[in-house]
Amino acid sequence: MSRVAIIGCGVVGSSWTLVFARAGHDVVVHDPSPEAAEAAVAFVRGSLAGTPEAEAILARIATAASLEEAVAGADYVQESAPERLPIKQALYARLDTLVPPQVVIGSSTSGLPASSFTESLATRARCLVVHPINPPHLIPLVELVPAPWTAAEAVEFAGALMTAVGQEPIRLSREINGFVVNRLQSALLGEAFRLVEDGIVSAAEVDKAVADGLGLRWFFMGPFETIDLNAATGVAEYCRNLGPMYHGLAREQADPRPWSAPLVAAIERERRAAVPGERLPERRLWRDRWLAALVAAKAQIRREFGR
Amino acid sequence: MSRVAIIGCGVVGSSWTLVFARAGHDVVVHDPSPEAAEAAVAFVRGSLAGTPEAEAILARIATAASLEEAVAGADYVQESAPERLPIKQALYARLDTLVPPQVVIGSSTSGLPASSFTESLATRARCLVVHPINPPHLIPLVELVPAPWTAAEAVEFAGALMTAVGQEPIRLSREINGFVVNRLQSALLGEAFRLVEDGIVSAAEVDKAVADGLGLRWFFMGPFETIDLNAATGVAEYCRNLGPMYHGLAREQADPRPWSAPLVAAIERERRAAVPGERLPERRLWRDRWLAALVAAKAQIRREFGR
Repeated sequence: MSRVAIIGCGVVGSSWTLVFARAGHDVVVHDPSPEAAEAAVAFVRGSLAGTPEAEAILARIATAASLEEAVAGADYVQESAPERLPIKQALYARLDTLVPPQVVIGSSTSGLPASSFTESLATRARCLVVHPINPPHLIPLVELVPAPWTAAEAVEFAGALMTAVGQEPIRLSREINGFVVNRLQSALLGEAFRLVEDGIVSAAEVDKAVADGLGLRWFFMGPFETIDLNAATGVAEYCRNLGPMYHGLAREQADPRPWSAPLVAAIERERRAAVPGERLPERRLWRDRWLAALVAAKAQIRREFGR
Repeated sequence: MSRVAIIGCGVVGSSWTLVFARAGHDVVVHDPSPEAAEAAVAFVRGSLAGTPEAEAILARIATAASLEEAVAGADYVQESAPERLPIKQALYARLDTLVPPQVVIGSSTSGLPASSFTESLATRARCLVVHPINPPHLIPLVELVPAPWTAAEAVEFAGALMTAVGQEPIRLSREINGFVVNRLQSALLGEAFRLVEDGIVSAAEVDKAVADGLGLRWFFMGPFETIDLNAATGVAEYCRNLGPMYHGLAREQADPRPWSAPLVAAIERERRAAVPGERLPERRLWRDRWLAALVAAKAQIRREFGR
C-alpha cells in the first residue's frame, strides 16, 4: 500500500486514478482546475457504479488543491498534463524541487520524449515516460521509455509498479519518435490510408479486414507469434518462404504519403455516415463497454487455456 | 441448400469444408491424394466432436475420387490447391471445361492474382480470388479479388454466398499485390522487424504491444473507427492534430528493409526459447482453442452491445 499522486486529470489521468486505486493504492489527484480533479473522482465513481468494491476504492482517492499538497508523501507520481512542451517543462521545474529525489515520476506523454522536458532538472534521473494506451483501466499495455539520463532503478521501479497494478509494461531501450505503439499504429494506418486513397477498398472495409480478420489473432498473440505458428517449423521457415514477398510489398509501401485533405474529407464523410457527429459520445460509451466485456472475456479464456 | 465442391484438401480446404457444411450446404471434397480428402473429413469430425449437430453436418460431406465427380452438379467451387502457379494453371484448364460456365469458381490463393491462372480460359469471367484468413471456420474475413475480366455477377454471387455462410467479405476494386490483408500485415510486420533489428524492444515486447494494447481495439473496431473515436469531433480532427506526427513517422519507416538472416535467426531463437519446436503443434491447438473461445465471446458481446 503506497501513495500515488496523479497530476493532470483529463481522460488519461482519470483512468490512471482508477488503475492505482483499484489496485489498493492511496491516490491523490490534482489538476490546476479543481473541477477537473472532481471530474476524475466522478469518473471513477461512474466506472465502479454498482460494484461491491466501489466505496472501498473511492475511499482511497483524495483531491489536492495544490501541487505541493498532491505530491507530499507520494511514493510515485504519474504526470498526465496536456501534451504541450512549455506546460510540461514548467511543471517538471516545480516537481524537481517539490518531490524528494528518490521518488520516480512517470509521464503519460504519448509524443514528447522525456529528454525534452527533463534535461535541465537536478533530479532528471528519476524521470521517464510511462505511456499508457487510452484508457489504461481497460487496456493494460504501458510503454516505459527512459531518457538518456534516466536511472535503471527508476525504470525498474516503474516496471514493477505497473506489473503490480495489473498493467503490462514493455521497456524501450531508448527514446524513439512515436515509441513502439504509435510506430506500429503508424505503419498500419499508413497502408490503410494508402488503400483507401488508391480506391482499392473503403475505410469500412479496411476496418473489417482488421476487426474480422487480422485483429482476431493480434488480440491475444501479436504479430511475431502469429507468423511463428503459421509455418510448420516456426518463424524462420515463414521468413524463408514469405520474406521476399513481404519485401516486395514493403517496397510498394515505401512512399510516405501525407494524409491529403481530400482523402481525410472522404474518410470523414464515410465515418459520419456510419456514426453521425452527435452520436460520437454514445459510440465511445459503446467502445468502452466492448472493451470492458472483452477484457473480462480474455481473462476468463486465459484462466482456461493459459497465456 | 446447394452443393459446393472443395478442390484441394490441405489446411485451408479442410476448414472451408466445415464452413460450408455447417451452414447447411452439401459439400463434395476432392484432392489428388485420397488420404488428404479423408483427412479433411476427419478434421471436420474432430472439430465438431461432442457437439449435437456433428452427425448432421458430417452427413452433408462426401469425398470424390476424381475432379470430374467432385464438380458434377456443383453450384460453387472453392479451389484450395497448392500455391504454385503451374499447378493452378493446369487445374483451371481442366475446370474450364468440366464446370458449367455459369458456376462461379473462387480461389483461396493468398498470393497469386486470378489473372495469372485464368487469362486464357474460355470461362475466365466466372473466376475470382476468394481469399480467407486461415482458418476460415474461425476467422470470418474473406477478400474478394476480381481479375480484370471477372464478371460483376460472379463477385456479387461470391459475396452473397460468403455472407450467407457467416463469413465477412470485403471486395477489392482490382488486383493488387498482397491484396488488403497481407498488405496491412506487411506494414505492421515491417515496423515490427525494424524495432527488433534496431534493438528498441524484443520480439516478445512487440507482441505484447499488440496483444495487450493495439489489438484490443482492432479486435472489434479496426484502425479507422479507432482513430475516429479518439478525437472529439472525429477522424478529420484526429488527422489535423496528428497527421504531421504520423507523416514524420512514415518518413522514418520508409526504408523497405529485407528481413536479414541474422535478424530472422535472432527472432527464431527468441521464439524457440518461448515455444520449443517440438511444442509448436500443441501451441497451434492452443491458438485454435483461443480463437474458438474468442469468436464465441465476440458473438455474445455483439448480441449485448451491438456492432
